Amino acid sequence: MHLSNYFLPVLKENPKEAEIISHRLMLRAGMIRQQAAGIYSWLPLGKKVLDKICGIIREEQNRAGALEILMPTIQPANLWYESGRYDDYGKEMLCIQDRQERDMLYGPTNEEMITDIFRSYIRSYRELPLNLYHIQWKFRDEIRPRFGVMRSREFLMKDAYSFDSDYKSACASYNRMFVAYLRIFTRMGLKTIPMRADTGQIGGDLSHEFIVLADTGESMVFCDRKYLKIPVPSANINFFDDATIENIVRQWTKPYAATEGMHNKDGIWAKMTEGDRLSARGIEVGHIFHFSTKYSLPMGALIMGQNGKKHPVSMGSYGIGLSRLVAAVIEASHDDNGIIWPKEIAPFDIGIINIKPGNIHCDNFSQMCYEKLQSAGFDCLLDDCDEQAGSKFATMDLIGLPLQVIVGPRSAMAGEVEIKDRKSGTRKAMSFKDAINHIGGI
Amino acid sequence: MHLSNYFLPVLKENPKEAEIISHRLMLRAGMIRQQAAGIYSWLPLGKKVLDKICGIIREEQNRAGALEILMPTIQPANLWYESGRYDDYGKEMLCIQDRQERDMLYGPTNEEMITDIFRSYIRSYRELPLNLYHIQWKFRDEIRPRFGVMRSREFLMKDAYSFDSDYKSACASYNRMFVAYLRIFTRMGLKTIPMRADTGQIGGDLSHEFIVLADTGESMVFCDRKYLKIPVPSANINFFDDATIENIVRQWTKPYAATEGMHNKDGIWAKMTEGDRLSARGIEVGHIFHFSTKYSLPMGALIMGQNGKKHPVSMGSYGIGLSRLVAAVIEASHDDNGIIWPKEIAPFDIGIINIKPGNIHCDNFSQMCYEKLQSAGFDCLLDDCDEQAGSKFATMDLIGLPLQVIVGPRSAMAGEVEIKDRKSGTRKAMSFKDAINHIGGI
Repeated sequence: MHLSNYFLPVLKENPKEAEIISHRLMLRAGMIRQQAAGIYSWLPLGKKVLDKICGIIREEQNRAGALEILMPTIQPANLWYESGRYDDYGKEMLCIQDRQERDMLYGPTNEEMITDIFRSYIRSYRELPLNLYHIQWKFRDEIRPRFGVMRSREFLMKDAYSFDSDYKSACASYNRMFVAYLRIFTRMGLKTIPMRADTGQIGGDLSHEFIVLADTGESMVFCDRKYLKIPVPSANINFFDDATIENIVRQWTKPYAATEGMHNKDGIWAKMTEGDRLSARGIEVGHIFHFSTKYSLPMGALIMGQNGKKHPVSMGSYGIGLSRLVAAVIEASHDDNGIIWPKEIAPFDIGIINIKPGNIHCDNFSQMCYEKLQSAGFDCLLDDCDEQAGSKFATMDLIGLPLQVIVGPRSAMAGEVEIKDRKSGTRKAMSFKDAINHIGGI
Repeated sequence: MHLSNYFLPVLKENPKEAEIISHRLMLRAGMIRQQAAGIYSWLPLGKKVLDKICGIIREEQNRAGALEILMPTIQPANLWYESGRYDDYGKEMLCIQDRQERDMLYGPTNEEMITDIFRSYIRSYRELPLNLYHIQWKFRDEIRPRFGVMRSREFLMKDAYSFDSDYKSACASYNRMFVAYLRIFTRMGLKTIPMRADTGQIGGDLSHEFIVLADTGESMVFCDRKYLKIPVPSANINFFDDATIENIVRQWTKPYAATEGMHNKDGIWAKMTEGDRLSARGIEVGHIFHFSTKYSLPMGALIMGQNGKKHPVSMGSYGIGLSRLVAAVIEASHDDNGIIWPKEIAPFDIGIINIKPGNIHCDNFSQMCYEKLQSAGFDCLLDDCDEQAGSKFATMDLIGLPLQVIVGPRSAMAGEVEIKDRKSGTRKAMSFKDAINHIGGI
């Protein structure tokens, strides 16, 4: 992509309304635009990051055996009367009457609807386990939306729902999602710690939050430093070997970890050595629940068991706040100059800066670099705009592409480029041929 | 994917509520489920087709220079007061009050919001042309939603918006989208004819509908048979060569073509020879508009022109009903046994039928076929379920994968398979090795 053909409305000034770093940087980097309180448009750069995050989540959900579906945003209220949860969300739920005066709502979550889908098709334990997920916009009418997409009203969520015939199998489903979540966040370059959590409005008896560590996080977390060294399973882990998966979950839940609300500083924490104690700031990015028959019982989602008798199916749900995750990554990975994208979710792999557009050597050489890198499989953004070099450097740092290739008049004539690593800030001059090898080897 | 791990709730009986073929087949093939009048969930098979269609549309919109963004579903009503269009949709617009009693709505289209985005960033003709598109759920509260996803209330739409500094450039933008649409529908295996159209609630002076020919289509169309032979440009067409693109549009708009409402049977039609006249049934799948300053003028989306003076930007919009398109493809491509997916949008490339699960030869051989075909890059669905052969054949025909590979006990022992082409119905027995070559060559 040539910047002259792109739509990247960067802001030079810090927008006043943005209280936290990710919100500030997303506005400044032209990733999002507010359309109403807590409601955002995603501009091209933001949309690309969102898509990359969706891509990783899909891959890992599919790997763990979940199947993708897509439920609508608007739900009939009657499903919520059935579950008895219609009033639980209070004014946070966006209630709507359609033209026939039927009560509808913009879904804040989908436990009811998925239970309805399940009960209309599945009859027997033989068709289980089943895990269905979707990635869809949700709405929660927060009284005070703020912090950009970190706490917005319309937000993108991945929610998965598991169905099992008994408790043991339900735990295995829970564990698969637990491990899938470890892989998802790790692939995004995040250090994430699962914490035992309160089940809130979703309900149930077992729940973990996944908290990203970030110095600018929203709340305090307290955990054992051992978490920083527990290995995350590789892509070829067998998700259907229940014992192995359970072992990984045990490893990841054994050391102490607690959110501020659950922290007990006089218990295990008091007995830990100073060196083991890690108190840090974090951001919740995922939340998983086992809630057994909370919805299947009132809604009559029954299955025939091995014993020939009908019983309510055992369920869990597994959410990731996708739009909020974009902000969380930025909170965890930025510096004074802007965003530093982890490689797997960077909107472009490489930014190429033509320092002097109009100079024939610069134009030709930067275009050549662009074409070669594109055909080598790198997605590049070539800044071919007529701006001061200083402003170009600032923009490229701000939008945080992992690698920069800088082409100036002198280097162009010598067939050289300067390579800058956004994270470390190191710059190296080399021939373009060496640069290709260098980039390919990263 | 193994069918035993998949969620494919096919129906043996024709659902009573479905009046048209695509609705019937989508329900029977387990693609969709109704959640409320005109509101559907997309089950795994349906979701895969929807994704493939989105993929083609993205590729072709990007190729034509459009940039993807994502606007929210919920819009503030004040934008619609500004454009003066708040009342135009009447009860079809789903109006909502949020908890602060602000007037909001579920977007039926996005001209207002995109104009608002434009005016907040773009100041000069030098930043144009610009074309921004998104793929997002829309809501139109139809008084009588019916025909499944063909006329639903919540529906997925791709809408692009072009911005140009003058009429000539706006026409070039319009033409680019026109040609992109030809490529999009052709890639989906559809025969589509652009027809001059009424501009309705969107407004403007120039508009074309794209009508898919299908025997079971919703309305009559009248056109010159020449349309069936006009070539559609290949992928390497240069979308930025305005003259070439204009020529293609001219070719595609010169012969007579009219919808029922616009048809004049006493005009050109009367002078055409019987052999040239094509009257057929069709389904509208796309609609493009040039409406100049209809929104930019009242909303103050002004740009600085070359003459140093400010003027309202010239706009167009370009829509494709994505969820409806899935149904249109089925109307255009089915037989008595079920759906016949065009190759590029089939949910799986190949269906493998293990006729006798439990038979060790069948199990091993069909699994081997599955693994070899998957690693050769084909996305396969292996029916490994314990069902009668007749029922398996019926299901595979119903869901319409382009190619079937059938493995029975005798053929398995001989290392042979039967290959069935879904469209022609021809079946051929051959060694698996020959089958691989045969399939690779298709």
